[in-house]
Amino acid sequence: MQAVSFKKIDLTDGFWREKQTLIGKVTLRSIYQQFVDTHRFDAFAHQWNEKMDWRPHPYWDSDVAKVMEAACYLLGKNQGEAWMAQLCVQIMDTFEAHQWPDGYFNSYYTLTDPAHRFTNRNDHELYCLGHWIEAAVAYEQIAGDKRMICLVDRYIDLVIRVFQNEHSAGFLTPGHEEIELALLRLYECTGKEKYLDLAAYFVDTRGSGAEPNTSPRRTAFFCQADEPLRMQRQAKGHSVRAAYIYTAMADLARIRTDGALQQACEAIFDNIVNRRMYLTGGIGQTQQGESFTIDYDLENAGAYTETCAAIGFALFLRRMTRLQPRGIYADTAERCFYNGILSGISLDGAHFFYENPLELHPKLQGRYLSVTAPPRQPKTVRQAVFPTSCCPPNIARMIASIGDWLYTHDERTLYVHHYMASEAAFDGMRICQKTQYPFDGAIELCVAGAAELALRIPGWCDAFSIVQNGERVKCAPADGYVRLALDAGENQIILNLQMVPRWTQCNPSVCDSAMKAALEYGPFVYCAEGVDNGENLSAVRVLPDAPIQMEKNACCGLPAITVQAQRQKTFDGLYRRFPMAVEPCTIRMIPYYQFANRGETEMMVWFKT
Amino acid sequence: MQAVSFKKIDLTDGFWREKQTLIGKVTLRSIYQQFVDTHRFDAFAHQWNEKMDWRPHPYWDSDVAKVMEAACYLLGKNQGEAWMAQLCVQIMDTFEAHQWPDGYFNSYYTLTDPAHRFTNRNDHELYCLGHWIEAAVAYEQIAGDKRMICLVDRYIDLVIRVFQNEHSAGFLTPGHEEIELALLRLYECTGKEKYLDLAAYFVDTRGSGAEPNTSPRRTAFFCQADEPLRMQRQAKGHSVRAAYIYTAMADLARIRTDGALQQACEAIFDNIVNRRMYLTGGIGQTQQGESFTIDYDLENAGAYTETCAAIGFALFLRRMTRLQPRGIYADTAERCFYNGILSGISLDGAHFFYENPLELHPKLQGRYLSVTAPPRQPKTVRQAVFPTSCCPPNIARMIASIGDWLYTHDERTLYVHHYMASEAAFDGMRICQKTQYPFDGAIELCVAGAAELALRIPGWCDAFSIVQNGERVKCAPADGYVRLALDAGENQIILNLQMVPRWTQCNPSVCDSAMKAALEYGPFVYCAEGVDNGENLSAVRVLPDAPIQMEKNACCGLPAITVQAQRQKTFDGLYRRFPMAVEPCTIRMIPYYQFANRGETEMMVWFKT
Repeated sequence: MQAVSFKKIDLTDGFWREKQTLIGKVTLRSIYQQFVDTHRFDAFAHQWNEKMDWRPHPYWDSDVAKVMEAACYLLGKNQGEAWMAQLCVQIMDTFEAHQWPDGYFNSYYTLTDPAHRFTNRNDHELYCLGHWIEAAVAYEQIAGDKRMICLVDRYIDLVIRVFQNEHSAGFLTPGHEEIELALLRLYECTGKEKYLDLAAYFVDTRGSGAEPNTSPRRTAFFCQADEPLRMQRQAKGHSVRAAYIYTAMADLARIRTDGALQQACEAIFDNIVNRRMYLTGGIGQTQQGESFTIDYDLENAGAYTETCAAIGFALFLRRMTRLQPRGIYADTAERCFYNGILSGISLDGAHFFYENPLELHPKLQGRYLSVTAPPRQPKTVRQAVFPTSCCPPNIARMIASIGDWLYTHDERTLYVHHYMASEAAFDGMRICQKTQYPFDGAIELCVAGAAELALRIPGWCDAFSIVQNGERVKCAPADGYVRLALDAGENQIILNLQMVPRWTQCNPSVCDSAMKAALEYGPFVYCAEGVDNGENLSAVRVLPDAPIQMEKNACCGLPAITVQAQRQKTFDGLYRRFPMAVEPCTIRMIPYYQFANRGETEMMVWFKT
Repeated sequence: MQAVSFKKIDLTDGFWREKQTLIGKVTLRSIYQQFVDTHRFDAFAHQWNEKMDWRPHPYWDSDVAKVMEAACYLLGKNQGEAWMAQLCVQIMDTFEAHQWPDGYFNSYYTLTDPAHRFTNRNDHELYCLGHWIEAAVAYEQIAGDKRMICLVDRYIDLVIRVFQNEHSAGFLTPGHEEIELALLRLYECTGKEKYLDLAAYFVDTRGSGAEPNTSPRRTAFFCQADEPLRMQRQAKGHSVRAAYIYTAMADLARIRTDGALQQACEAIFDNIVNRRMYLTGGIGQTQQGESFTIDYDLENAGAYTETCAAIGFALFLRRMTRLQPRGIYADTAERCFYNGILSGISLDGAHFFYENPLELHPKLQGRYLSVTAPPRQPKTVRQAVFPTSCCPPNIARMIASIGDWLYTHDERTLYVHHYMASEAAFDGMRICQKTQYPFDGAIELCVAGAAELALRIPGWCDAFSIVQNGERVKCAPADGYVRLALDAGENQIILNLQMVPRWTQCNPSVCDSAMKAALEYGPFVYCAEGVDNGENLSAVRVLPDAPIQMEKNACCGLPAITVQAQRQKTFDGLYRRFPMAVEPCTIRMIPYYQFANRGETEMMVWFKT
């Protein structure tokens, strides 16, 4: 099964084109400026000494690399600006200027502790290299220029020698995975086996037992190293690390046709989607270690669901789709796109969430006022930058390259996994989508060059119709896709996906959402905010059988949805005898990803029934 | 208004007599043995050196003191055993043997760091002295022997010199309050003004601004020292510290007729009872600093509600009742007795809870398995001892002296605040209660020597009847009490308090309990356990309008109560479209204080409706 690069796909007008334009015009500039202001670019330029009032950080280089990667994608889709191209060149100049003779590059170690490079498993050196590799691949894809690849190749050769050949580093595999998936991207870009071999070495070594847990603070479990990856069947540990290594595992399973790896990937996916995933596609159930916990443990207010984890999960799902086109993979990726990922960026494009909980209670922020070292609470207001600011450039590069998720194909079949207004030509195939999706469910496709077209029918869609070249086609989806035999030449297919609001329930084993209801509309999870509905949403019970009202185009082209509900009436004091006084009310709901764009206010997804 | 000591009151058969017998036969021996096994008595005996595999702790002396205090109370009510009397003498011998020439006594500092006594505000030296003072008062009350009072008097003189006169200590007021209320007890026992003056000095100085916050870990807020106590209007900081200083404030307000202190106590009480108290009477909303948080922040699973805090609250409430006999004070004390305090001790008398949450989810205990330093989670199984084991001896001394809460009187009126089968004679008055309360609501009182009898009608009681000397009396309670003029000589009053199960709602501002219902019966809060009802109680919705069934005597003489409910049916996976499948079910509920006596199992107080 072949992937189709976003390079080959032009998003025309519509939802994602607008998002890419926002990333190009606002987001990346804002991120870049914040990274300049917070000295990340100073550190990268090695402009630091002990007298300064800030210190470099082991993973700051990755922020610079992701800015470069996102810039390349935008430039490649004519969404970029001149400063981005100049920045890429500056970054390569700086990298080259400060790269060690043996190829090593890490501004933190070079500046603060050069004698101890490759000694601390948790210090993100290989994680940073991974992001440099992805930036290099992006630059080559877009500019057709191998300069950055040549620079990272020297560093990779050093890593091959130190880690793979000499075993002379202080640890065997990275504490924070990322380089594995990056090496596989570089392998597929260049065809050089050494990259594949190093990625496979890291995948095979992790959890093999050869590896001591070199971390003082984290368990082997935390970084997916408690057993060989091929043996693993549950999502575990730090959610971003997990998602990144699962992504590499899926690619390696495909490239090496490694059945054991594929089996592990499939079991882990099943564990996540059936036991450990929020309705938004968010993963990572607790901020304690930013980690997965146990089955059915899905607190709403306490949800961690880091933006980067949802992005990493979507990267994994794209690889799984390429391994095997099951509708559930693309369904879940779509759940991430429109909910757990987009919630990470504000509508103005310049403010972000690192955590994306399913409930916000601003009034509880002051609860630890007698504790001098209070535990971290979820942010209730979006931030322009974070001390650990991995998410903003991650969401920028992801949206800029969203086209990568649309299509795969083999000799005869073209798979359409996602619906976005776009035009594409690749490998002798042409496909054009005319649609307002996700604003509505009508999609007109023009396809040529494939013998068969496989269209994903989203799991949320109960009723759909297909008209092929003017004739109504009756067919049922198999494993999430309907298959249409195509004529030689141009084929016109009109797909209509019925999009109506629906109530969703949660498995009763989930304490926090049992006996509750959440509203969904097409691929969107909805939520209610205090700014529309007043505070104390916990005192509201929705009535799923009652009629609802759609307020068209109220939310950036999407409807606001007003549902019937009941609210407990308040009273003085804390406790009172029944009967409980409840009054009928309506609750206005908006797409979840749009929450916290109108000031600090309460927010809730799951409602009592 | 005069207090009536438990010494003057003999509990006859019934609920509390049985509890005292259990304390005397099982509990105190178990606690003592645990404290021996954990080296608390070795440390007290100064049998320690650096080579040993354990270290003394700054507050261990208080554990020994509370064991002595509880032993005295039991001995005083013929509930004691010979070993307890011997232990009291041994303890005094040891104290005398290791007391410094200047009166100082603290095994931790004497053994580990004598040069730094009185330098660390958080190291509980004065807290320990407070408990020694209470033990001394108890010993004098029971044995009529001033030996322990003489020993602590020398220590108090040192404290007066160092703290009150020379200001030569490293801090001005104790980090953990307790000595203030103890000094006031000693003042009322001996009449010596110096004890009253020292207590008043500590109360006046706390938060006066003269005092630097000497604590590196805790804020002034944490120990009620951010503003003068007379200015305080909200419960704040560490809940046990708070309850102990409020107790001292209420006594000092009475002794010195200090209106400003009384006003602070009343405002703080109103804040707790109307904003910050669990249905069980538990206080201390978070384990973070074991502290109060903010209004309406009452998480059920996250409730901290330390047993000692509920006991401290009951001590405060007894003082408030003496200041002014408002029914709400005794109502709230009763709520503590039968729920948040008794829940701290197992039915077998030898196992304890330090925290008393309103929900237990044992299945979530493993959630932090990828975190090497996981946050503390509530214990799901009762323990024989804790590293910090203040609660077990505290509950022992409290139950042994529960009679203290029953009565107050002035020249003409005898107030009956609580109903317990008992006989008492004091200050020319005699009163006998024949009752099975709290097993039922029928109470026969025989009273002589008072002109008026004031009977508390519990706030939970809707219907009651009174027959005085054979004649039905019609009267309505005023501020929680009905007042009956008494004849000279013997008066017989038959009070009947109707006791029926009732559903209670919570203020909708409380996120975790809004739109929910809790079952109460008389003074008891009820809960449901997984062992009776299966797991996933969060998926249950109770039907408060439906009939209930009483299972008489099922729970140590109290009824089990079975209510009608609905339960969400389970399904594969995490999320599913509505309609939700619910099945009718029944939920068997037991008194909250009896939870976790049948193995580790889920528990819930507040149910969806």
